[in-house]
Amino acid sequence: MIESIVKNKRVTEIYASFVKHMKNFLDEQQINHEEYTNFVKWANRLGTSGEVPLFLDVFIETYVLEAKYKGLPGTEPSLLGPYFVEGTPLLKEQPFVLPQRPDEKGEKLVFRGTVSSVNGQPLPQTRVEWWQDDADGFYSNFDSDAPDYNLRGHFYTDENGRFEVHSIVPVPYQIPTNGPTGEFVKAAGYHPYRPAHLHMKFEKEGHEPLITQVFFEGDEWLDTDVANGVRTSLLTKLVDKGGHKEASLDFVMRIE
Amino acid sequence: MIESIVKNKRVTEIYASFVKHMKNFLDEQQINHEEYTNFVKWANRLGTSGEVPLFLDVFIETYVLEAKYKGLPGTEPSLLGPYFVEGTPLLKEQPFVLPQRPDEKGEKLVFRGTVSSVNGQPLPQTRVEWWQDDADGFYSNFDSDAPDYNLRGHFYTDENGRFEVHSIVPVPYQIPTNGPTGEFVKAAGYHPYRPAHLHMKFEKEGHEPLITQVFFEGDEWLDTDVANGVRTSLLTKLVDKGGHKEASLDFVMRIE
Repeated sequence: MIESIVKNKRVTEIYASFVKHMKNFLDEQQINHEEYTNFVKWANRLGTSGEVPLFLDVFIETYVLEAKYKGLPGTEPSLLGPYFVEGTPLLKEQPFVLPQRPDEKGEKLVFRGTVSSVNGQPLPQTRVEWWQDDADGFYSNFDSDAPDYNLRGHFYTDENGRFEVHSIVPVPYQIPTNGPTGEFVKAAGYHPYRPAHLHMKFEKEGHEPLITQVFFEGDEWLDTDVANGVRTSLLTKLVDKGGHKEASLDFVMRIE
Repeated sequence: MIESIVKNKRVTEIYASFVKHMKNFLDEQQINHEEYTNFVKWANRLGTSGEVPLFLDVFIETYVLEAKYKGLPGTEPSLLGPYFVEGTPLLKEQPFVLPQRPDEKGEKLVFRGTVSSVNGQPLPQTRVEWWQDDADGFYSNFDSDAPDYNLRGHFYTDENGRFEVHSIVPVPYQIPTNGPTGEFVKAAGYHPYRPAHLHMKFEKEGHEPLITQVFFEGDEWLDTDVANGVRTSLLTKLVDKGGHKEASLDFVMRIE
């Protein structure tokens, strides 16, 4: 018997557990061979099309997060999703104005947030990464024709853990439906919509990175989000201030 | 709420069950976000490399079959695997001599089989598809430089449900290790070998198609087959007849 050179105990353990639970699933569903081969063909189309990250982030990531964080103190994580990119511009001055096109469409948004530790202390100099879709439901660096890093940026909280961002109100959007992920959405009888949301990622020494999203009360897709990413603790109110909307949320990071 | 145009109740049911069992798996394993994103990156490499069918057939297919057929009367199925192809030559006369190169390497094999129904009746005119690797562990139409359909063919059983094939003895082989499937094999601490086997697929009106494999007693990889395809009921003895080996097995098909 060949001894493998590399062996990762965690991989072996996770895979053994996956097989155990998959057997329970298969015992329950009694998949026949035609169903299996149809699945393999679809999964191969998914793979070769490059949609594996899209599919996993929409249909699996939320359960990974729920299993690990449900019931813990601190702000609930939500999915990172497939639209995160590195290398966004650093915004230097409060209020942080997100990069926008001169004629950026959409309702103006003023968002105020605070970041604190589960022990109650505010967290100054916390790195916040922010990304969101535009008023047409597209993300820069992906499906939008906006310049790279449009409506994306990172910045640091002030000495009281506060930040204020000027941006536009995000809108609900459809996940891509013209590929194998869309095939699945249709076959399963889902709709392809996500409620409007802001993506944020918080990083602070001594604390677990917090990846989450902010949703807005009254959005028509909150209860049927195709990616199941909504948590009631991540809901905020969009307050109409005439020329713009305002919203806010307080974020709490877990100690590492 | 949008009503989907196409909705497949079986897809919805299978996916709901999958999510339920996946939640149990995630509750048990508490996957952290770094582990999740590493998995997504690997799964995307697997997908774009075209290895999804290889990975699923090696690591999943056997459990699909076990769940459905364990305990049923009739010959146990084993995996179809990724090396099945359509369009093989029809072999017309017993003994059926598989297409071989003039200088085909390997030990000569005479294999005799019978096909009957679970009710005990022999099954004449049963279509048998046969495929196997060569003495270097390669499959024609895939990684071998042999002509297409070398060591592949299909034929029909005689009036007593019998068939005799002249071929070569298959050898153990490694699944491909230079791609993402190989990465997994190494990380999990497995070896990449499958025991020597013959692939057969049986089709007869009124009966469920039977896809299975034949293994040989004494093979060093029987207990640790990377694809977990071995069933003790699929084992046969290779009998040394001097210039060639002989083996046999009786196959029993389930009524539809």
